[in-house]
Amino acid sequence: MAGHNDNSSNIYKQGLEKNAANYVPLSPLTFIARSAYIYPDRVSVIHGQRRYTWLETFNRARRLASALEARGIKEGDTVAVMLNNTPEMYECHFGVPVTGAVLNTLNTRLDPEAVAFMLNHGEAKILITDKEYSHIVGPALEKLGRSIVVIDVNDSEYTGPGDLLGEKDYEALLAEGTPDYEWKGPQDEWDAISLNYTSGTTGNPKGVVYHHRGAYLNAMSNIVSWGMPPHSVYLWTLPMFHCNGWCFPWTMAANAGTNVCLRRVDPKLILQSIRENKVTHYCGAPIVHSMLANAPAEWREGINHGVSGLIAAAPPPAAVIEGMAKIGFKITHVYGLTETYGPASVCAQQPEWFDLPVGEQVNLNGRQGVRYHAQEAITVLDPATMEAVPWDNETMGEIMFRGNLVMKGYLKNPKATEESFAGGYYHTGDLAVMQADGYVKIKDRSKDVIISGGENISSIEVEDTLYRHPAVMAAAVVATPDPKWGEVPAAFIELKDGVSITEVEIIEFCREHMARFKVPKKVIFGPLPKTSTGKIQKYVLREMAKSTAAIE
Amino acid sequence: MAGHNDNSSNIYKQGLEKNAANYVPLSPLTFIARSAYIYPDRVSVIHGQRRYTWLETFNRARRLASALEARGIKEGDTVAVMLNNTPEMYECHFGVPVTGAVLNTLNTRLDPEAVAFMLNHGEAKILITDKEYSHIVGPALEKLGRSIVVIDVNDSEYTGPGDLLGEKDYEALLAEGTPDYEWKGPQDEWDAISLNYTSGTTGNPKGVVYHHRGAYLNAMSNIVSWGMPPHSVYLWTLPMFHCNGWCFPWTMAANAGTNVCLRRVDPKLILQSIRENKVTHYCGAPIVHSMLANAPAEWREGINHGVSGLIAAAPPPAAVIEGMAKIGFKITHVYGLTETYGPASVCAQQPEWFDLPVGEQVNLNGRQGVRYHAQEAITVLDPATMEAVPWDNETMGEIMFRGNLVMKGYLKNPKATEESFAGGYYHTGDLAVMQADGYVKIKDRSKDVIISGGENISSIEVEDTLYRHPAVMAAAVVATPDPKWGEVPAAFIELKDGVSITEVEIIEFCREHMARFKVPKKVIFGPLPKTSTGKIQKYVLREMAKSTAAIE
Repeated sequence: MAGHNDNSSNIYKQGLEKNAANYVPLSPLTFIARSAYIYPDRVSVIHGQRRYTWLETFNRARRLASALEARGIKEGDTVAVMLNNTPEMYECHFGVPVTGAVLNTLNTRLDPEAVAFMLNHGEAKILITDKEYSHIVGPALEKLGRSIVVIDVNDSEYTGPGDLLGEKDYEALLAEGTPDYEWKGPQDEWDAISLNYTSGTTGNPKGVVYHHRGAYLNAMSNIVSWGMPPHSVYLWTLPMFHCNGWCFPWTMAANAGTNVCLRRVDPKLILQSIRENKVTHYCGAPIVHSMLANAPAEWREGINHGVSGLIAAAPPPAAVIEGMAKIGFKITHVYGLTETYGPASVCAQQPEWFDLPVGEQVNLNGRQGVRYHAQEAITVLDPATMEAVPWDNETMGEIMFRGNLVMKGYLKNPKATEESFAGGYYHTGDLAVMQADGYVKIKDRSKDVIISGGENISSIEVEDTLYRHPAVMAAAVVATPDPKWGEVPAAFIELKDGVSITEVEIIEFCREHMARFKVPKKVIFGPLPKTSTGKIQKYVLREMAKSTAAIE
Repeated sequence: MAGHNDNSSNIYKQGLEKNAANYVPLSPLTFIARSAYIYPDRVSVIHGQRRYTWLETFNRARRLASALEARGIKEGDTVAVMLNNTPEMYECHFGVPVTGAVLNTLNTRLDPEAVAFMLNHGEAKILITDKEYSHIVGPALEKLGRSIVVIDVNDSEYTGPGDLLGEKDYEALLAEGTPDYEWKGPQDEWDAISLNYTSGTTGNPKGVVYHHRGAYLNAMSNIVSWGMPPHSVYLWTLPMFHCNGWCFPWTMAANAGTNVCLRRVDPKLILQSIRENKVTHYCGAPIVHSMLANAPAEWREGINHGVSGLIAAAPPPAAVIEGMAKIGFKITHVYGLTETYGPASVCAQQPEWFDLPVGEQVNLNGRQGVRYHAQEAITVLDPATMEAVPWDNETMGEIMFRGNLVMKGYLKNPKATEESFAGGYYHTGDLAVMQADGYVKIKDRSKDVIISGGENISSIEVEDTLYRHPAVMAAAVVATPDPKWGEVPAAFIELKDGVSITEVEIIEFCREHMARFKVPKKVIFGPLPKTSTGKIQKYVLREMAKSTAAIE
């Protein structure tokens, strides 16, 4: 019945409402149902000797869902997991949210305190945990102050130490469930699908909440923005606990491809898997790609099909992009944060770049680029005025995102949520310039900028130079206190196997390639502390630099 | 402020609302802005000697939008177009809806009465029309009973007769506008984007209304479901006035590819364009593909890059699919209706099919298949009970769709809208069976089934047999009244050039290949009446068959 309202003069708003036939809330859960229907016998997941088809994976996810519901799990509950990239982890990305519950993937490198904090903050009712992490999870459970249901994953591909902590094994849990479970999407596409805690350097971790709509859209956008063909073979080098593997569990279900699991990042194992499983696609932090580029050539023998990689999670050093080009892997750089469902911008390649000298190509390809298809905007704004910076490659501003690939907000943290969305954009905290072609080029995390004698030094720029030195495997530059300049750069360097070099030689190399005030005043050699996703932990280095400064 | 409501126990529904940073209504208008930003100099549209880049096309669309707004066009208004596949038509797919108005694309084969009906029913305020159709549009405007703004497209690629009817030329209209127009999406993704009248055989045409959300999702789904790589070169063999070219104007903007325009479907011109423009993709009705498969081999010379085609709009005869395979074009069969944004299901190919004999491959590939990524369901139901038919390849039911690729409804026709959505599914009116692998196989349009002595005869099945005869170029089978059997099949056949055959030979061929009761009782040779999209007009043939029967 057409009444008198604001739309009474608009003929397109009368008698054309949503109904069960023409509206379904967006959810990536629809993709696994589609692949199981159309490709029941295609291989969905490979894990060592284990092989599953799409119908099997779907049935396992349905068993999981029905077993969870039988234990009282319902809409708005939290199910936490402490898992590697295993079939169980993949199944949880479907079997948990289909119940209306929210999947909270925990970083396997956390300490017991952090795990306990997250389990309590997220109000997890069930925890599914891999035996390998019992030394963390056990103490964490003791700190909880309440009891929750614990389910063990006892992976046949894991042969190391560990204890079973739970009341039941994952396979026994599945046996409680039924594959006849009715698969259905959420009531509302704005409903939460997952919870990812960010590893802040100060204060408590923040719980980033994703919704079904965003997960659906980024699952599609990964395919369209990367140009991923149907039935790709995807190697899980990126942890699924990190931004839900950049939404790739759902992308691969839409793609009806094959997930190749991997418990740990090891270049020899990765290259072996790429060869044996004819892997076509993978994602990872620069360190993952760097390991592949620097691996002995014989490990890569027999890999002559095309391999495409997405690189992100930290600004990629130019040398890594160059190294990958040399071994014939096609690398695309994407950028995003936990708050943006993983990648939400891409350094879209232009055909004319391929005619440029390699060095220039590498510079162009290493940028944060332009928006993903499903994102509305990436831009660089002055955070005080919210004015866009000119496209002059010089004026610094903060990278901001806007669109459907931005989180719902931080769980139970309205203050942080509001701050992060101030002015109608998500504030990344990354500093950047806008280049003449409208591509964003990151300069630094705001907290990583080194302010020396009033001048800003981009730690990334100094690192890029260090990476160009043939002896350097990995490098990180941080601020260290200096009585004269306030701060000066200190360089931490991990050398390639079998090479040696002195501090003086490194400093000399820097002087040849950069302004004098940017040259590190100190060089420390040794392995760099990294997160599980390969991000170098600069706050650790900052502490080290400070204590070295104090001693000297 | 968290209040007491139904969601008060769900921590994921508190303080995590939509805001300007994390929610943007879905609209395919975002894609042209993206391509113009990232690929300003890439070729967007080719039309004869004319070439546009993405920035130019975007600027022309912005000029169009601002000129329309200056003339009072606003949200909920209708702008009608009577255009071929030209750059202007492409621009209208963006420049009209960005104003909030709705694009009504008129079929260029309509008669003046039908055009006048649609302009009045849709309440069009402006009509943009190609000079070629002045003989239809002129009389239509006289019948309108009101005056509307008319803008002419005077295409340099058109050299035939025609008059300029409007107050202004399209280029002059663009000159009124500005490329500084602010590009923005709709307030609500449920807002209408386009209006497509269906050519019903009885009663007045119905106006199918699309929304921005569905257009966005099918634009993405065309890429993902077809596996279309970025920067494809797409030839416009399918009219953009037909279901908005199956949403491909928006798909190509997302793809950042190149649109190759074509004013008319001519096999020699098509093959020439494929060769010269290195066309990689095109869509069309079976007749279009059939013309290419049957074209002289020398017209195809020099085409040795991969060409992929989507086939739909009518059930594809097996012989056409086979013919395309022979000339090396990769054909994918999709299915849908105006009411489903064009293609909403796909006959997804299984790798094992390629090892089968060609005949079997063709049978498998010719089915209506399984749901598109962005559609929730295609199924075959008993329309009386809404129960699914068994997967027995035998029990007939009606094809029904459900999901985000189903129209808003019929404009100003709540009764038809309600009927079409009865029971929570869109009713297609097509009869089908479900095969053992869950693929839908169409048997007939409900109105095309021939009921002979109480037995149902699928006209499509008889046509498929006729197409296998080497002399047959096109075939259509309809019911004709029969005093004994009620109805009997009559066959209309268009022969290939330079062959001749008798009615008796055709009937003999049919007797060898089908049950006796299905064999046509009458065969009529001659050109078949077709719609602009290549659909054979069975209602015309039915009249012809009836009058022949009366004479005999």
